[in-house]
Amino acid sequence: MKVVVVAGIPGSGSTTVLEHALENLDYEHVNYGDVMLEIGQEKGLVGDRDDMRSLSPDVQKSIQKDAAKSIRERSKQSNIIVDTHCTIKTPTGFLPGLPQWVLDELQPDMFVLVEAFPDEILLRRISDISRTRDVEMTEDIALHQEMNRAASMTYAVLTGATVKIIANHNDQLNTAVKAITEALQIK
Amino acid sequence: MKVVVVAGIPGSGSTTVLEHALENLDYEHVNYGDVMLEIGQEKGLVGDRDDMRSLSPDVQKSIQKDAAKSIRERSKQSNIIVDTHCTIKTPTGFLPGLPQWVLDELQPDMFVLVEAFPDEILLRRISDISRTRDVEMTEDIALHQEMNRAASMTYAVLTGATVKIIANHNDQLNTAVKAITEALQIK
Amino acid sequence: MKVVVVAGIPGSGSTTVLEHALENLDYEHVNYGDVMLEIGQEKGLVGDRDDMRSLSPDVQKSIQKDAAKSIRERSKQSNIIVDTHCTIKTPTGFLPGLPQWVLDELQPDMFVLVEAFPDEILLRRISDISRTRDVEMTEDIALHQEMNRAASMTYAVLTGATVKIIANHNDQLNTAVKAITEALQIK
Repeated sequence: MKVVVVAGIPGSGSTTVLEHALENLDYEHVNYGDVMLEIGQEKGLVGDRDDMRSLSPDVQKSIQKDAAKSIRERSKQSNIIVDTHCTIKTPTGFLPGLPQWVLDELQPDMFVLVEAFPDEILLRRISDISRTRDVEMTEDIALHQEMNRAASMTYAVLTGATVKIIANHNDQLNTAVKAITEALQIK
Repeated sequence: MKVVVVAGIPGSGSTTVLEHALENLDYEHVNYGDVMLEIGQEKGLVGDRDDMRSLSPDVQKSIQKDAAKSIRERSKQSNIIVDTHCTIKTPTGFLPGLPQWVLDELQPDMFVLVEAFPDEILLRRISDISRTRDVEMTEDIALHQEMNRAASMTYAVLTGATVKIIANHNDQLNTAVKAITEALQIK
Repeated sequence: MKVVVVAGIPGSGSTTVLEHALENLDYEHVNYGDVMLEIGQEKGLVGDRDDMRSLSPDVQKSIQKDAAKSIRERSKQSNIIVDTHCTIKTPTGFLPGLPQWVLDELQPDMFVLVEAFPDEILLRRISDISRTRDVEMTEDIALHQEMNRAASMTYAVLTGATVKIIANHNDQLNTAVKAITEALQIK
């Protein structure tokens, strides 16, 4: 069975595209952060998601690896879509969501990056009143998407997986959903 | 002796540039796909090139590794130019032509990417009636070249090789041939 | 303690930004090339910097590794900023400054790329009469910065480090110094 990683920066609409695509797909949907939280809780290390950040980097790394192993394990039963970040924008820079030790355990078959034009993302973020998101200029948004492309290509070289770019432009959600659905249905 | 990998997307003119450059170079020219086919045939696994695709991914991977090992072996006798794809555009996304397990065996010294402007490539593809090629928009062509740059830089970090970008613009074939020839003649 | 790598292409102003930032930071400043030279001299292999290039690639690689190990060792005592090249533009192409075997020893926490607009870099190079630098067109400068971004993202995936991009535009040195200082002060 397949392990597919789907990611997109905030405002790319990756979650929406994924939700619609899952209606027509025989894939189990897994959120990487949720799996990490479950493992942290089972080990008695954390109560809720906020506690995760207070763990030492080594413990976080160990949980991250265990989560990858657990997801790979589940893929023996069904196809898995992992919803995660390609890179996370932090105050110290772009942090890869899938560093080498995660890739070694996860062994994904495909990375999907959901993208949109930077100005589309900017306007979606501004109008999304449900979340407080940092306001970024279009050039910062473009940079984040560029770094995600580079990171995903590195992921692909390390694992032999493919990188599929899905454009999710305004008023073209159906096109994006169709494109991701077709790519995920290929045997 | 050196192992140099030369690649370019369809319409970049990489094959033409390479053929002209080889006239003045002391390099043996090897096509990666041909070497894989020979190995598959020796092992009695395939008859022709089309059979390769029906092999299981694990068998393909094993042949891919053996091909890399065989090419590295030949480089004891002479400088080798390997003609292959940097990434292959497939329905499931960009597939790296040289995943980690190939790089480990091949240990190339240099990657050459032959590029052109996306609109040059678009027009060359349209006028190339000898092949049926998928029609791609210039932005898709630009994306493929961008992903090849990222992939080749990953290849370089994993092996310590260099990445040389050669521009092959319309009516400037001689410039491209001269540039690749000079780069390949450096000791 | 942290190991941070700071790089920027010639004319990016990375050295100037770094010098100013170091005034307010509790970091020891180390130049990668200097450490390699010291190690080469201790081993009696070289007299001065020019001798380094005449060493065989294997010996250079071994010194490069030892330098990384030595810098990682020093980081037990204090935070370290390593001043080096992300990729070096050579006649055979872009050579990664931190190939895998260096990353394995160095285990950096953060990569900082200091950038500017290609035309700013072009004009800074032309007016810098203290050095003879190859004249490059703005598109070559843009390409070098693009390859550095891709290389640094590969470094990050292999090590789990972050990549911070710092813009150092004309007349905005203070902004660049402030940005790098803040990123380096995060615990």
